[in-house]
Amino acid sequence: MELKRFLSSRTALMRASQVRELLKWIGRDVISLGGGIPDPSSFPAQAIREILSDVLSSRPEAALQYAPTEGVDELREELAKFMQQRGIKASADNVVVTAGSQEALELLARVIIDEGDAVFMENPTYLGAIQAFRVYEPRMLGVPLDGEGMRIDVLEEKLKKAKEQGLRLKAIYVIPTCQNPTGISLSGDRRRRLLELAEEYDLLVIEDDPYSYFVFEGASPPPLKSLDASGRVIYLSTASKMLAPGLRVGWLVAEEELLDKVVMAKQAVTLQTSTLSQFVLLEALRRGVVEKQLPRLKEIYRRKRDAMLEALEDYMPGGVRWTRPSGGMFVWLEVPEALNMSSLLPTALRKYKVAYVPGAAFHVEGGGYNTARLSYSYPSVEAIREAIRRLASLISDSLHAPRGAS
Amino acid sequence: MELKRFLSSRTALMRASQVRELLKWIGRDVISLGGGIPDPSSFPAQAIREILSDVLSSRPEAALQYAPTEGVDELREELAKFMQQRGIKASADNVVVTAGSQEALELLARVIIDEGDAVFMENPTYLGAIQAFRVYEPRMLGVPLDGEGMRIDVLEEKLKKAKEQGLRLKAIYVIPTCQNPTGISLSGDRRRRLLELAEEYDLLVIEDDPYSYFVFEGASPPPLKSLDASGRVIYLSTASKMLAPGLRVGWLVAEEELLDKVVMAKQAVTLQTSTLSQFVLLEALRRGVVEKQLPRLKEIYRRKRDAMLEALEDYMPGGVRWTRPSGGMFVWLEVPEALNMSSLLPTALRKYKVAYVPGAAFHVEGGGYNTARLSYSYPSVEAIREAIRRLASLISDSLHAPRGAS
Repeated sequence: MELKRFLSSRTALMRASQVRELLKWIGRDVISLGGGIPDPSSFPAQAIREILSDVLSSRPEAALQYAPTEGVDELREELAKFMQQRGIKASADNVVVTAGSQEALELLARVIIDEGDAVFMENPTYLGAIQAFRVYEPRMLGVPLDGEGMRIDVLEEKLKKAKEQGLRLKAIYVIPTCQNPTGISLSGDRRRRLLELAEEYDLLVIEDDPYSYFVFEGASPPPLKSLDASGRVIYLSTASKMLAPGLRVGWLVAEEELLDKVVMAKQAVTLQTSTLSQFVLLEALRRGVVEKQLPRLKEIYRRKRDAMLEALEDYMPGGVRWTRPSGGMFVWLEVPEALNMSSLLPTALRKYKVAYVPGAAFHVEGGGYNTARLSYSYPSVEAIREAIRRLASLISDSLHAPRGAS
Repeated sequence: MELKRFLSSRTALMRASQVRELLKWIGRDVISLGGGIPDPSSFPAQAIREILSDVLSSRPEAALQYAPTEGVDELREELAKFMQQRGIKASADNVVVTAGSQEALELLARVIIDEGDAVFMENPTYLGAIQAFRVYEPRMLGVPLDGEGMRIDVLEEKLKKAKEQGLRLKAIYVIPTCQNPTGISLSGDRRRRLLELAEEYDLLVIEDDPYSYFVFEGASPPPLKSLDASGRVIYLSTASKMLAPGLRVGWLVAEEELLDKVVMAKQAVTLQTSTLSQFVLLEALRRGVVEKQLPRLKEIYRRKRDAMLEALEDYMPGGVRWTRPSGGMFVWLEVPEALNMSSLLPTALRKYKVAYVPGAAFHVEGGGYNTARLSYSYPSVEAIREAIRRLASLISDSLHAPRGAS
């Protein structure tokens, strides 16, 4: 039997994640700065154990049964309250629970993107969003970032141009706080300006916000959704980074009218999110487990970020630049243009025993070969320092190697 | 802001599930024969509680962390063994874990269906499959059932005709054992004949099998996958009916080459299935919890089926026919053609205080207005009897009412 004849033309648009392919390669002696994998010591395992024990004693018939597609009612209410604490006006009816943010991205793409629709995104941006959107064949238009996040002046130019070209303008996808992959946050002024442009050009704004709950320094900037006057902002978040990714629980906050379509789409995709996982998040919110987590996460990841920044300072050769994230899990590295971080990866893994994600995969319009994403979330402080030392050796050696020798 | 302009043209293909809409209507005094909702007394809540307590003590870092997209390795191994007990040759590499069968259907549709591709299905068939497929715009061609399941002679005619019409023939979707919505099982001869036709016409076979693990009487017929010589059968099952639907864990068994594409698709859809839920199923298989469940489920649902069949016998007026399921959760009802079970539903809910799913939704080529799906899985034996009494009154009253009076 020849499989090829059975595959949809859509499969040609799918790409295996480089992060994932990478993980397969990793030997025990390699230190990985690859995936944005939470530090398992941050998991409130004992509290979750108690929650599950209680829930399965007192309400097993609910916790093991089917639940509504939009999510367990009590959890939607609890999430609405959680959102209100962030300045977001939301009732339970504005919340839909998803199987992590990834499903939220999939459902949104399904509900709003037709082939050729223009979607504006930071460049580089989150790989999972590119993967979710790509299958629906939008025109993904990249907007570069500087130290204050997405360049709103460039966004405006691109909007203007796309409109002149007659493209259907649909949405701006943005990770405004501690962006993945750069760690950069969008400034307050730019947040307001972005929303003005969304208004002017009549666009939806998809705000992806996994990291703002544990910003290391200063106050977390207000979510775009809290500044949203006309209901154009669709807010996404997840329990993956603040509680535990193994639960696979995320949520969407938006206008009910849009959520009706999202729920209809979800019926066909996963029917509902794990009821058991929803009860864990529900009780973790109710019992203050999440609240207790946030300062701990701040502490754990700030220490690790500091270790990475210090090691970069100590080891990296001249001509290498990196971001200074105020939260999240990633540092973005830029090496001299002569180096290609994608083609250096096999050498990094085999000879230097260090893993990273080449930056090209995060770019929506090609390029970015001299960039890489470095995650400090999983390895120990010591391992981070050693990994950066190895990476710096790779870069130094490659910069000084005769052409074509790497 | 006008939402309409933002919606993809795809949203016009989405339909809210009637089962789901129905549930919203149900008052406390209504007995529902609607959803295929497991009897919560069947949940091994205490065993699951122990599993979670143990897992969160001994392996919290694994159970709460990200897991591979294809599923937790140990679970894939355990499921392969479970499959081998059913005569299916499979190794862990042939297994992908999904967020329930619904996601498996979504992923398969995504990976194999292009617009206009011919997919052959029992008519009536599982609503969730229709919903998953519809978005990808196949030609869904219905094949009627009789007491031995899908009419293979009609399938052959339809295959021949579709080929002559130049359609791209892609797959046969079939629920061979205790079909949803009819409860009918495909006979052994027809199973072999179906596979021969799949070979002759070069088609994939999607075998959806949630119910065969607890057939009430006699031996469960062999899964199509166990008879599959050329790797064309894609087998789907789920822990929803045999363990607990709130876990949202299902699995796919197929050739690795196809699964590579499924996994790539899953990365963009949900990234992975809840790790916590996967550990529950893993340990439930390892500790024999599933094995112990199966005879219990047989017992619970056989009693309920018997109650429904007895009540149908006792109360239904002449001219009403129903199936006698050998397992699963559903009886299929056919009333005289003069009655429309879709338009009778509001009266059923408001006046007769009984809920069912109108059969039209399960049909892929229209029609079926004089049919309904009755589920005996959730209500008590007493409630089942009372619900059938109410339903019989509705039907009798409507048959004898002057035209247009209902």
